Amino acid sequence: MTDERPPRAVKSHARLSISASRQPRSLMDDPPRVKGAWTAKIVTLFPEAFPGTLGLSLLGRARDLGLWALETIDLRPFGIGRHRNVDDTPAGGGAGMVLRADVVGAALSQAARGTPPDPERWPVVYLSPRGTPLTQAMARRYAQAEGMTLLCGRFEGVDERVLEQFGIEEVSIGDFVLTGGEVAAQVLIDATVRLIPGVLGNAESAVEESHSNGLLEHPQYTKPPEWEGRAIPEVLMSGHHGHIEAWRREMSEKLTAERRPDLWEKHKAGKGD
Amino acid sequence: MTDERPPRAVKSHARLSISASRQPRSLMDDPPRVKGAWTAKIVTLFPEAFPGTLGLSLLGRARDLGLWALETIDLRPFGIGRHRNVDDTPAGGGAGMVLRADVVGAALSQAARGTPPDPERWPVVYLSPRGTPLTQAMARRYAQAEGMTLLCGRFEGVDERVLEQFGIEEVSIGDFVLTGGEVAAQVLIDATVRLIPGVLGNAESAVEESHSNGLLEHPQYTKPPEWEGRAIPEVLMSGHHGHIEAWRREMSEKLTAERRPDLWEKHKAGKGD
Repeated sequence: MTDERPPRAVKSHARLSISASRQPRSLMDDPPRVKGAWTAKIVTLFPEAFPGTLGLSLLGRARDLGLWALETIDLRPFGIGRHRNVDDTPAGGGAGMVLRADVVGAALSQAARGTPPDPERWPVVYLSPRGTPLTQAMARRYAQAEGMTLLCGRFEGVDERVLEQFGIEEVSIGDFVLTGGEVAAQVLIDATVRLIPGVLGNAESAVEESHSNGLLEHPQYTKPPEWEGRAIPEVLMSGHHGHIEAWRREMSEKLTAERRPDLWEKHKAGKGD
Repeated sequence: MTDERPPRAVKSHARLSISASRQPRSLMDDPPRVKGAWTAKIVTLFPEAFPGTLGLSLLGRARDLGLWALETIDLRPFGIGRHRNVDDTPAGGGAGMVLRADVVGAALSQAARGTPPDPERWPVVYLSPRGTPLTQAMARRYAQAEGMTLLCGRFEGVDERVLEQFGIEEVSIGDFVLTGGEVAAQVLIDATVRLIPGVLGNAESAVEESHSNGLLEHPQYTKPPEWEGRAIPEVLMSGHHGHIEAWRREMSEKLTAERRPDLWEKHKAGKGD
C-alpha cells in the first residue's frame, strides 16, 4: 500500500515523532534507545498527544534512559486526495465517520516494517470499546513481547476489513465511550511498561506483588499517627508482623467481597487476577 | 488546614494552572469560561500532565469555547518541610510510599473552596484500582453534576483517613495497575465531558445512542467497496434500511455474546448498561 504514497509523505511518517509539543523535533532531541528496547508504535491522528502522561515520573525517566521507546505514525499523510481524508461515511448509513481500510492499512504496513510478524512477539492492538477488557495478565503478556503496535481510533470506528486483514487484537480499557483511543493507548502502555525489568525501582517493583493475588488492596496509613481526630489502627503500630499481616489480609478480603463480588468469586475459585 | 500553609504556597496553588507545558502561563492565556461551565478540579503532583489528551480535537475545542474548564491543584506546595515532602512510609511496614493525609487534606480543602458540599452536585473522586469500575452510567451522572474534584494518586496510595474525612468516592478504570492516577483522570474526564450538551456535534452525539443499549457495536465499513479482495457485506450496499438494521442488530448481539458473556447476560436480563 505504501508504494502508492508520494515520497514526501513516506518520508514524513518514517521520521520518529515522539514530541509532546506541536513543534517537530529533530532526531537529535530524541531520547537514546537501548538496542532491542521494548517499543510502542502508535498509529494516530494526534501524534502530539504523546508521550503525554507517559513522559512523567518513572516512565519518563525510563524512556530518557532508553529502557523503552515510543514512535508515533501520523495517520494524516496516508489520507486520500488533496485534503488527505482519512475517513468516510458508514456503508449502509448511520451517524459518524469510519476510518478507511486503505488509509489505516497503509499506516499499519508502515508500522510493520522491522517488526516480527508473530503476534506473540509483536502484538498489534486496536483500542476499542468492543475489545477484550484489559487486565493485569494482558499487560504482563505485552511486557514480555519485543514491542507492540497500537491503533488509536477516532470517530465511529475503523473499517472492519483492516482489522481482519492485519489480524488485529481488539482491546478495551472499560465499558465507557471515549472521544478517541489516544488516552486508552497511554493507559495500556503505562500498565505494560511499568512491568518491564528496570523501569521501576526495587521498592516499586515489590509493590506489584500485592496486586497479583486478585484481591483489592488493604487500607494504607502513614504519619502523623493522629489526624483530624482519626488514629492509625492500633495493630499497625504494634510492631507485631504476624498480626499486621493477618489484619491486612482480612481487610483485603473484606474490601474485595464488599466492592467487587466478581473478583471475590474468582479469587475463591483459585483464579486470582 | 490551609491556614497552616505559608502565604507563598497558598498564592501559588490558588492560581489556575491549566497549561500542558512546564512553563507557568498567565491567566490571560487561559481559555474563556462560560459562567457555570462544568469544571474538573484535579489534585496532582503533575499539573503539567493536563490538559494532555483532553486538549485534543472536540474536547479541546469545547474547552477553548469555555464549555468546560480544567483547574489543576499542585500537591507539592502543600508538602511538609523544606523539601515539601508529600509522602511517607506505610504504617506497619511494607514497600512503597503513602501520600500523607494532612498534605492531601490541605489540597482537597483548597479544591473545595467555591464548590457545593453535596456530592451529587460536586463528586469528589479518587482514582484507584480499589474503586468502583467506571461505567457509562457513572460518566452520565458526573456529566449532570456542576463539576467534580479528582485526586490522582502516585506511589502505594493515599492515607485511608483522608478518604474517610472527605467522603471520597473511589473509582477504578480497570483491573490493572498504573504508575499514577493522571491518565485515569483523563479517561474519566474524557468519558464525562463528551456527554455535556454542546461538546460534541450533532452527528457525534447521535453515535452515543448506539452504545446505550448495553451491546457491543456492529462492524463498520466505508469506501472503497472492495479492498485487498475483501468486499463490504452485500446487505449494507442494498439500500434496504430494514435489512441493514436487522443485520447490524444481529451482529451486535453475536459479538456481545461471543466476546462479553457478562454484558450479554445483563442485556438479556434487561439491565443493559
